[in-house]
Amino acid sequence: MTDTVAHHETAHAAAQEAELPAAQPADVEAAVLAVGDRARAASRAVARANRAWKDRALLAIGAALKEHEARILAANEKDLESGRQNGTSKALLDRLALTPARIDGLVAALENLAGLPDPVGTVVRGQTLPNGLRMRQVNVPMGVVAAIYEARPNVTVDIAGLALKSGNAVILRGGSAAAHTNRELVAILRDTLVDVGLPADAVQTIDEYGRAGAEVLMKARGRVDVLIPRGGRELIQNVVLNSTVPVIETGEGNVHIFVDESADEDMAVEILLNAKTQRPSVCNTVETLLVHSKSTVLPAVARALAERGVRLHVDGRSMAALPEGVGGVAATDYDWATEYMDLDLAVATVDSLDEALEHIRRWSTGHTEAIITNDLRNAERFIAEIDSAAVIVNASTRFTDGGELGLGAEVGISTQKLHARGPMGLTELTTTKWIVQGEGQVRG
Amino acid sequence: MTDTVAHHETAHAAAQEAELPAAQPADVEAAVLAVGDRARAASRAVARANRAWKDRALLAIGAALKEHEARILAANEKDLESGRQNGTSKALLDRLALTPARIDGLVAALENLAGLPDPVGTVVRGQTLPNGLRMRQVNVPMGVVAAIYEARPNVTVDIAGLALKSGNAVILRGGSAAAHTNRELVAILRDTLVDVGLPADAVQTIDEYGRAGAEVLMKARGRVDVLIPRGGRELIQNVVLNSTVPVIETGEGNVHIFVDESADEDMAVEILLNAKTQRPSVCNTVETLLVHSKSTVLPAVARALAERGVRLHVDGRSMAALPEGVGGVAATDYDWATEYMDLDLAVATVDSLDEALEHIRRWSTGHTEAIITNDLRNAERFIAEIDSAAVIVNASTRFTDGGELGLGAEVGISTQKLHARGPMGLTELTTTKWIVQGEGQVRG
Repeated sequence: MTDTVAHHETAHAAAQEAELPAAQPADVEAAVLAVGDRARAASRAVARANRAWKDRALLAIGAALKEHEARILAANEKDLESGRQNGTSKALLDRLALTPARIDGLVAALENLAGLPDPVGTVVRGQTLPNGLRMRQVNVPMGVVAAIYEARPNVTVDIAGLALKSGNAVILRGGSAAAHTNRELVAILRDTLVDVGLPADAVQTIDEYGRAGAEVLMKARGRVDVLIPRGGRELIQNVVLNSTVPVIETGEGNVHIFVDESADEDMAVEILLNAKTQRPSVCNTVETLLVHSKSTVLPAVARALAERGVRLHVDGRSMAALPEGVGGVAATDYDWATEYMDLDLAVATVDSLDEALEHIRRWSTGHTEAIITNDLRNAERFIAEIDSAAVIVNASTRFTDGGELGLGAEVGISTQKLHARGPMGLTELTTTKWIVQGEGQVRG
Repeated sequence: MTDTVAHHETAHAAAQEAELPAAQPADVEAAVLAVGDRARAASRAVARANRAWKDRALLAIGAALKEHEARILAANEKDLESGRQNGTSKALLDRLALTPARIDGLVAALENLAGLPDPVGTVVRGQTLPNGLRMRQVNVPMGVVAAIYEARPNVTVDIAGLALKSGNAVILRGGSAAAHTNRELVAILRDTLVDVGLPADAVQTIDEYGRAGAEVLMKARGRVDVLIPRGGRELIQNVVLNSTVPVIETGEGNVHIFVDESADEDMAVEILLNAKTQRPSVCNTVETLLVHSKSTVLPAVARALAERGVRLHVDGRSMAALPEGVGGVAATDYDWATEYMDLDLAVATVDSLDEALEHIRRWSTGHTEAIITNDLRNAERFIAEIDSAAVIVNASTRFTDGGELGLGAEVGISTQKLHARGPMGLTELTTTKWIVQGEGQVRG
């Protein structure tokens, strides 16, 4: 083990000198596993830190980010410059960019985290058994949380903060396009941890080991307790299909709203406008509108959306119902399947709630679906029969959000059914431990 | 889709005629995926069934098992006869064998299940948000549960009952050595479901598709919501390493008891005897005893264990402390790593709680560890620093059991940290759904 660590540190120093990923594939496995071992050792200290200590760390990290803002922005400028030279799209450059205002946002999020209750130590259930044993099941930290994400340096601080608050060590693998920024951020985080008496290795990055390092991380059973991918469909699917460590699948939202026959027109217009245009690039934005053929709201909804620049992709019957001056393009299966994350909306007309349910069953990613209705039986059926993380009646799909639902902080939105489903808060970064105390009881 | 199903049914009929696995690899994928599609469709009906209906089904299944006892035993005899011809060990034949008494046991377990509360519909949390939205998070069935297990036909009934009570459809893959028995049991289960108005496809087996079928099941993302392996280490590791569907790892228990300096001798003797000899073949039996070098209990503990036939595998210092007439063999790393599941116990002497914690950290499978002590600080440190599903103070490790801890029924004992840790009850076969109801609220 000592050899491995020493070897790793040499490789690390060399990589820093060259400012480029340097490790050879043969070294990568040993190096990343050694990162895992150090994370495990560090996790014990973080798990034992009480809330006051962890909150001190979070606030100190925030202060350090402001103090070293110039250093961070200079590193970020290197990444942006490489991005521009490589022809990176404007949208990706925007996600890569840090600004003083964005750093203020990160600091504010850390302060918010520090204000939240500690998820560790909550007694989930407990009782005294007939034989006198006192039993309780208590939330405890997972241990080592890992994250694989794209070139968004804010995720580095975000995930590290969430992991620390919930008593975990974290291993980060960000997109290589943000490597300079992430290296600077992680260095600041690690220095600050040491300042407050916590181990630096509670936050580590494996960016320097490139894709090969990510592959090792995905198979590091026993070293990584949970792996969270954050990013687009391709990244998430790659992690889900190639990991042998437990993964929480997050994010993809092909979100539907069904406007029932009894829906109020004004309510339908307000909700559709909000769900499609308030922030079209996020996962809880609506992507497909299903309208009951006996509803008369489509013209008003379509006009309102078109006025806000929404492009409509419509089936034949919906096309016929569009009002004068509002155009639509013919929808194909591509549209029913697509999470546009843009000012686009697929629209289909259905003859019944059953037909709407069938469409959703076929195309939904299980994130969020909503119904707009005044029919109690249909509302109840929609709630019972939709198999998605969130089911909404007469409100915007944008409410599937940890902050909006009172979780305080959001780790991500899980679209799987194991462990966490829907918005995940700090508690979802903990597991439980059964604690049983007796005076010599044995089993009969 | 229709073609696939029709094709599958032909293959199925052919397999039944030949009474042997018959499907070709090329057919297997389509056939197993079709099983998954039928399970998904059936799961909707089971999810909607209320508790009274599900309990009726469980009781009817119990009655049908008794009614068709002769048929079941005849099928079981075929499996046993094949086993004897293939030279199957006595222990494995015993696990394969059904008897009238064992069938009575299965019926009693189903009756117990029918008496338990329904895990579906429990409101985990709920509140009215500042904007008037009513939010609640509710337990709902997973959907489709799958199980891969060894040649123990009782697991077929056990898992099917647990899945149905929690509102799920189930896909079963048992060991091929129990194929005749499982086929009969599944046929009885399916007929009974139809009798009570539930779909037969809520219980399906893929035994006829052999190992190739199990491989398809492990990758059937979207069709299988959770896969539970039940069996020995090799089976579980195979499932964990090869599945892309979410898995709950269960069972392996390299369980430790640390006898601290302050431990009471009588208590130590009682607990060790119970933890090692009451049922040595199960996962919560103790496998390694760690004794503080200043404790004087080892001679009494060793004598009591030896009198009950326990073979001691001891390190040097423990060997020196054995009383006259009690022998031990020298332990190696093999012993620290081994889950004997037999009347064997590894014994090591340590100089401190820290040394005990270090030994456990290195060798534990994270199932259960216990401390026997009268020192409050050491008890608290043991509880805080042991990273296992169950931590026990002054009681037998045999209490890590769903029944003993008040869960009513036990699905298995999870040794992973995601979703469920330690004994799993019916609730662990459910997930949650967020339900949000409003009157037109949109996000500001």
